[in-house]
Amino acid sequence: MSMDRLLEKIVEMQNPTVAGLDPKLDYIPEFLRRQAFEAYGNTLEGAAEALWLFNQGLIDALCDIVPAVKPQAAYYEMYGWQGMRVLERTIRYARQKGMFVITDGKRNDIGPTMQAYAAAHLGEVAVEGESFEPFGADALTVNGYLGSDGINPLLDICVKRDKGIFVLVKTSNPSSGELQDRLIEGKAVYEVMGDMCEQWGEAAPGKYGYSAVGAVVGATYPQQLKELREKLPHTFFLVPGYGAQGGGAQGVALGFDERGLGAVVNSSRAIMCAWKKEEGLAEEHYAQAARREALRMREDLTAHLPSIRL
Amino acid sequence: MSMDRLLEKIVEMQNPTVAGLDPKLDYIPEFLRRQAFEAYGNTLEGAAEALWLFNQGLIDALCDIVPAVKPQAAYYEMYGWQGMRVLERTIRYARQKGMFVITDGKRNDIGPTMQAYAAAHLGEVAVEGESFEPFGADALTVNGYLGSDGINPLLDICVKRDKGIFVLVKTSNPSSGELQDRLIEGKAVYEVMGDMCEQWGEAAPGKYGYSAVGAVVGATYPQQLKELREKLPHTFFLVPGYGAQGGGAQGVALGFDERGLGAVVNSSRAIMCAWKKEEGLAEEHYAQAARREALRMREDLTAHLPSIRL
Repeated sequence: MSMDRLLEKIVEMQNPTVAGLDPKLDYIPEFLRRQAFEAYGNTLEGAAEALWLFNQGLIDALCDIVPAVKPQAAYYEMYGWQGMRVLERTIRYARQKGMFVITDGKRNDIGPTMQAYAAAHLGEVAVEGESFEPFGADALTVNGYLGSDGINPLLDICVKRDKGIFVLVKTSNPSSGELQDRLIEGKAVYEVMGDMCEQWGEAAPGKYGYSAVGAVVGATYPQQLKELREKLPHTFFLVPGYGAQGGGAQGVALGFDERGLGAVVNSSRAIMCAWKKEEGLAEEHYAQAARREALRMREDLTAHLPSIRL
Repeated sequence: MSMDRLLEKIVEMQNPTVAGLDPKLDYIPEFLRRQAFEAYGNTLEGAAEALWLFNQGLIDALCDIVPAVKPQAAYYEMYGWQGMRVLERTIRYARQKGMFVITDGKRNDIGPTMQAYAAAHLGEVAVEGESFEPFGADALTVNGYLGSDGINPLLDICVKRDKGIFVLVKTSNPSSGELQDRLIEGKAVYEVMGDMCEQWGEAAPGKYGYSAVGAVVGATYPQQLKELREKLPHTFFLVPGYGAQGGGAQGVALGFDERGLGAVVNSSRAIMCAWKKEEGLAEEHYAQAARREALRMREDLTAHLPSIRL
């Protein structure tokens, strides 16, 4: 199972962090933007090239200390197909460098359409007998509102191609409770969704106890994180909301088990924009600033966890 | 409001149909595939070109009798960025031909990330002072599981740029009830989501009574369609599941109001693959077969509706 590979990398690096690659143009140092726009003009292609140069530098600086990256599809789609081409290039480059790649796409649909998404992001497609891997991530975030018809098409690919998914369960945003906290026969909607993750995961168990079906649970709701960790013993968590959105390491620690496993914590802006916060830093050293922030975050997280082991 | 433009087109053509453009390679006649693969090889680019040629023929044959098309993003993403380039090209072409374009992406996220999706599919992005329209559809399907933080970023674009959204409420698939039919204080999850659509729509009202916030409600659940039509007087419906998935015109009619308005009914496979069903038809005439099926569907739907008027 793909979740096994993620766990092994987390243990190897003693770091349960995933670096979000959500590259807005504002986050990118001027020298990289200039280089991109000089080569491709003030175009979508130019913007996409700036994203690529930025990502490449970050991946180079993080790949030996951070086990995973999570490109957010929206920030690539925003620059059209030219942006999607850079999403693909980023995924390939990060995987070459040994990183586990989670595409944050929150995709959802049913039957053959969900199969098409699964093939796009985690699988292969056949064209006249030739086989291609369109985006080629290790895992994909998905939305389970449509029920099993939306998830089953992914389980097959998880098993056959050693991939994983993360289903939205309890998201980190302030309004997540409008639907997710409402009660169904005494159980919150997010708990019902969590239970479904455990069930779906039975079809794709992992050797360290966590299935290929993970869940997104926000760092901003530590009580729910704790409660879900206890109730969903086979479901690995992807935890957004640490840092910028207000989730602290102490709360995040509630999402982990007694082996220091059970969750991978995302940080996007704090890592990508670390260069803006270091006084007097030349922007050319943006990637080293990102590395320093990633090391600081590792310290912060592991200080609140038992030593991480399989 | 964008929903107004859709309503006007439906009345003009006396046809509440949207043609789904979900072009699997299997659906595409051999002569088009050959043309594409001879030009671009057995590659993702070749597959994307086949999709484009197929779509172009369908749009030409349908644009004076069908008000809208609905490309399903998954079938384009499946062929990588090359496929996404054809999604963009298809949208532009259909709009040039006067059609209303609904991108079926079921996108969902929060805050700035949802803004990025909104800009990608319905808005513009700025690159060094130049402005670009990355995909440029008229409306987008979205998933409301994350609550208002996921929908508010779209409302602004709906009002400013005359666009619309369709939120998943009650989907057409067999397992949609696993979550959507569960009861929250006596109300099904899909009703709670429907109520939120009415509320979100208050920020973007339309001149014919329907707001820019529509809902996806499956043809396969006629009772829910009827009930939601009564309870959600300002929410326009996008209705999948007619034909291939088992929804009949009589049931679908329950989603309409006394003006013969209130819903647009999707047909994908039946239109795209009509050429396979006509005995003795040369495949070169696939688009004319699609047109005949679209006319048949118009007859079938309007036979069960009051005459359509604003």
